Amino acid sequence: MSPNLLLLLLLLLMFFSLSITSSLSSPSPADSPPYLWPLPAEFSFGNETLSVDPAVALIVAGHGGGSPIVRAAFERYMGMIFKHASGRASLLARIRFLRMVEYDITSLKIVVHSGSEELQLGVDESYTLMVSKKDEQSIVGAVTIEANTVYGALRGLETFSQLCAFDYLTQSVQIYKAPWYIQDKPRFQYRGLLIDTSRHYLPIDVIKQIIESMSFAKLNVLHWHIVDEQSFPLETPTYPNLWKGAYSRWERYTVEDASEIVRFAKMRGINVMPEVDVPGHAESWGTGYPDLWPSLSCREPLDVTKNFTFDVISGILAGLLQNKLILRSGKKLLDMRKIFPFELFHLGGDEVNTDCWKNTTHVKEWLQGRNFTTKDAYKYFVLRAQQIAISKNWTPVNWEETFSSFGKYLDPRTVVHNWLVSDICQKAVAKGFRCIFSNQGYWYLDHLDVPWDEVYNTEPLHGINETSHQKLVIGGEVCMWGETADTSVVLQTIWPRAAAAAERMWSTREAVSKGNITLTALPRLHYFRCLLNNRGVPAAPVDNFYARRPPSGPGSCYAQ
Amino acid sequence: MSPNLLLLLLLLLMFFSLSITSSLSSPSPADSPPYLWPLPAEFSFGNETLSVDPAVALIVAGHGGGSPIVRAAFERYMGMIFKHASGRASLLARIRFLRMVEYDITSLKIVVHSGSEELQLGVDESYTLMVSKKDEQSIVGAVTIEANTVYGALRGLETFSQLCAFDYLTQSVQIYKAPWYIQDKPRFQYRGLLIDTSRHYLPIDVIKQIIESMSFAKLNVLHWHIVDEQSFPLETPTYPNLWKGAYSRWERYTVEDASEIVRFAKMRGINVMPEVDVPGHAESWGTGYPDLWPSLSCREPLDVTKNFTFDVISGILAGLLQNKLILRSGKKLLDMRKIFPFELFHLGGDEVNTDCWKNTTHVKEWLQGRNFTTKDAYKYFVLRAQQIAISKNWTPVNWEETFSSFGKYLDPRTVVHNWLVSDICQKAVAKGFRCIFSNQGYWYLDHLDVPWDEVYNTEPLHGINETSHQKLVIGGEVCMWGETADTSVVLQTIWPRAAAAAERMWSTREAVSKGNITLTALPRLHYFRCLLNNRGVPAAPVDNFYARRPPSGPGSCYAQ
Repeated sequence: MSPNLLLLLLLLLMFFSLSITSSLSSPSPADSPPYLWPLPAEFSFGNETLSVDPAVALIVAGHGGGSPIVRAAFERYMGMIFKHASGRASLLARIRFLRMVEYDITSLKIVVHSGSEELQLGVDESYTLMVSKKDEQSIVGAVTIEANTVYGALRGLETFSQLCAFDYLTQSVQIYKAPWYIQDKPRFQYRGLLIDTSRHYLPIDVIKQIIESMSFAKLNVLHWHIVDEQSFPLETPTYPNLWKGAYSRWERYTVEDASEIVRFAKMRGINVMPEVDVPGHAESWGTGYPDLWPSLSCREPLDVTKNFTFDVISGILAGLLQNKLILRSGKKLLDMRKIFPFELFHLGGDEVNTDCWKNTTHVKEWLQGRNFTTKDAYKYFVLRAQQIAISKNWTPVNWEETFSSFGKYLDPRTVVHNWLVSDICQKAVAKGFRCIFSNQGYWYLDHLDVPWDEVYNTEPLHGINETSHQKLVIGGEVCMWGETADTSVVLQTIWPRAAAAAERMWSTREAVSKGNITLTALPRLHYFRCLLNNRGVPAAPVDNFYARRPPSGPGSCYAQ
Repeated sequence: MSPNLLLLLLLLLMFFSLSITSSLSSPSPADSPPYLWPLPAEFSFGNETLSVDPAVALIVAGHGGGSPIVRAAFERYMGMIFKHASGRASLLARIRFLRMVEYDITSLKIVVHSGSEELQLGVDESYTLMVSKKDEQSIVGAVTIEANTVYGALRGLETFSQLCAFDYLTQSVQIYKAPWYIQDKPRFQYRGLLIDTSRHYLPIDVIKQIIESMSFAKLNVLHWHIVDEQSFPLETPTYPNLWKGAYSRWERYTVEDASEIVRFAKMRGINVMPEVDVPGHAESWGTGYPDLWPSLSCREPLDVTKNFTFDVISGILAGLLQNKLILRSGKKLLDMRKIFPFELFHLGGDEVNTDCWKNTTHVKEWLQGRNFTTKDAYKYFVLRAQQIAISKNWTPVNWEETFSSFGKYLDPRTVVHNWLVSDICQKAVAKGFRCIFSNQGYWYLDHLDVPWDEVYNTEPLHGINETSHQKLVIGGEVCMWGETADTSVVLQTIWPRAAAAAERMWSTREAVSKGNITLTALPRLHYFRCLLNNRGVPAAPVDNFYARRPPSGPGSCYAQ
């Protein structure tokens, strides 16, 4: 038995003896604050109220404790927790220095066992959080977060921040119902949110706001649907005319912008999965390279007949650049594989209408020459694109139509992305594929008439009963398609409903499936929406039937 | 002649000889970027394109040049300008160090003549901004901002930031149409935005987002309508039960929060004018002190008969505190006059329905005893409240009903705040009062059916022809009433229409009144809305007939 395990057992015993209303095995419904969202896998609490020192010290341990990711997250969360005290080094801290005030909690210990900062699918996000009164006898500090990876520590910090509440009467940050013992981990390894920067360009600062807000709900994949038929905003060093398909000269992302977004997300434990959707949804490619269009009257799907089409796809995925100018001089090499280190790359493949291929002479001849139906050509295109991604060490993700149309030909590593048919994951995992669940009836956030409870009650494993099959559902994703959501409304269309899916994907199936969710989840969701508001995220009222409707009259955040 | 003036003249001569399309006296319509908003008072430009060094050096001069306000603003603006280059100390800066790139503009000189940081009504916000290619012969740097106060320097920095555009092809920040010579100052000294934290609580971070966005449009007064009948969120140390009228224990502002908001605003050259609206719009006061209600069935207006009512008003305005607990111990003294240093304090006085005074026995008797009509009592209340504010060295502001009802009794220092009747400023200034213009038909932002051009074409001086009268209109204010605007929608209800009013109030009357605004203003407003989006502010599409409507389909920010 490792010293850590021993320590944990000792602490467990200690907490059980202290806890007044211990409920480790049966999470209590949200009867009073603190309201945690998403609900941790296991937790127990007591009945004490503890004050937290605004100058709380960070103590780190373990191979990963000293990571800058941990330090930066600690500083971020201290800023959120001590917002009302005008910063940690304020008057309050000075008063404490004069020994006028004694706090119950004066240090936060973060133990991270692994020194690796690699953020990949299935990274260990588990953590243990212990909060108790400082005790001279105690061998640990008052608050301890223990995790195998820095990303587990980030999740623990988020939970800790939700335990902290500013009490306006004493004007101090307090933790209610201590001591707390929380042992937590996600149910699904992939908990995504799609954004769509083709239908409307989203500025970098807005993408960062979205990423930051995702971390509050413990979502961990930003599915970046970069390109679609309307615009091509991303710089592609190998084919520099592609972003001529942007809406304007200003609505673009440089390769450095993409890197910065990935870096910003990683600091919050969030992977970025890019999507380049082929062969449909790609008309904008031809603005820069008209040869990619079968003809001027057939601009989509991309021309399946030309090697040039696949050279461009390969060029996008490679991104190797020999002569890119920086500031009118200088050279650099950029490898898209390094810019997007997440193993998954989404190749789209949805809604491919091949009618105009049939009506374009050279494509028609090519089909006849190969004895291909248009469906064969669609398959040929998708499989060839898959091989390009695989050759560059990516795992391909495709929308479900590829599986429905020619599933047995897909590379077995393919992750099938559900959106259209409710039982497609059931079918895909039965064939051994991994699957991401995004049932459009409930998890498409641009469907404004889906209230929070329908989002919440949508279960990715519905109808999938064998454990081996369940394991192949790597998770789910809510999709914020951009046709009617630009910068002005994107965050309030995402929140609070994305949070409903986030709890479904993080918390235990038992916790989110039983009881009356009006009692077990709704009060906590109200509270979480207000927490988002307090952190500057314009989450919409929870009770609106139509998403993002403004409130109809005056009132409290907590009752909307 | 001072050395500075001499220098200015020399530079002027130099610029005139350089400028290709100089148009100092006749501002050109927005034919191409850079699009400045609001339009400066006087400007000329040329036809050169200059690159700006991401490591641009700040050089300060003058008594106020070393102000931390200037330094902090410089850092903020550099962050906005060089967003796409991953920060100023990035790869690009290193490349420059290796002398691979030479920039045209490598330094920004800020000259501030006055060392005073006092921010009051009428503070000098004028500035001169000169941008030209670095010249070995030149005695000044490539960019110079010269201002009498730090607040003028802030306005100049905003204008400079709008001249800078990230060019995606060269991947550098460029200034088009240089050399620039801009001499600028506001038309009105008071350019306000009202927020309402009673109908919906706005978290501190959201108020900060609003303040930050105001500075982009050169607005300079946040009118904080703190309290109303629905909730009383502000801590009042002298009457600690008042904020029991908050919506919840979390929807509150401490005195420190208020201080922090004022400090944050000052750093951006924005004054905060608090409003405590009496005697109507005050029902929430009685939650903590039911004696303030005439009776349980008459909760508004406040009880005019009791000295206690005026003691509470005096207590709110004093804020002196003898025994306030901080963190369960310690004492502090807080003076509201120091927390809100702006000379104006808004006492409301609007929409006072005195019917229930008449139906409350003790009030009725009090009226009879003094031979007062209810209108007399309303006058008595407002005047007594004014004297309390004046005794604490504030200048009272009152909504126009006080002027309409008993104007000749108002303290002559009173600033009359228009909202209801379109010619009230005309009447008020004729009587020698100062006036703030907020015509509700056009400048109430909660009226969603007023498109941008109607906001833009609303002229505060309409019908006021004598210069001495015009001078008494200190400015105007757009009002973001909170009944249907909470955190989830407040910013997109404010923007972009508040910008239309901001230009009306900043730029010369001639510039905003002549020509076809679809040509002279609309392209620049589109651009400004996208600038707000790029800075993370969710400004709504400009072309929507109804404010804050999301876009109806895919498209570019610049064409919505």
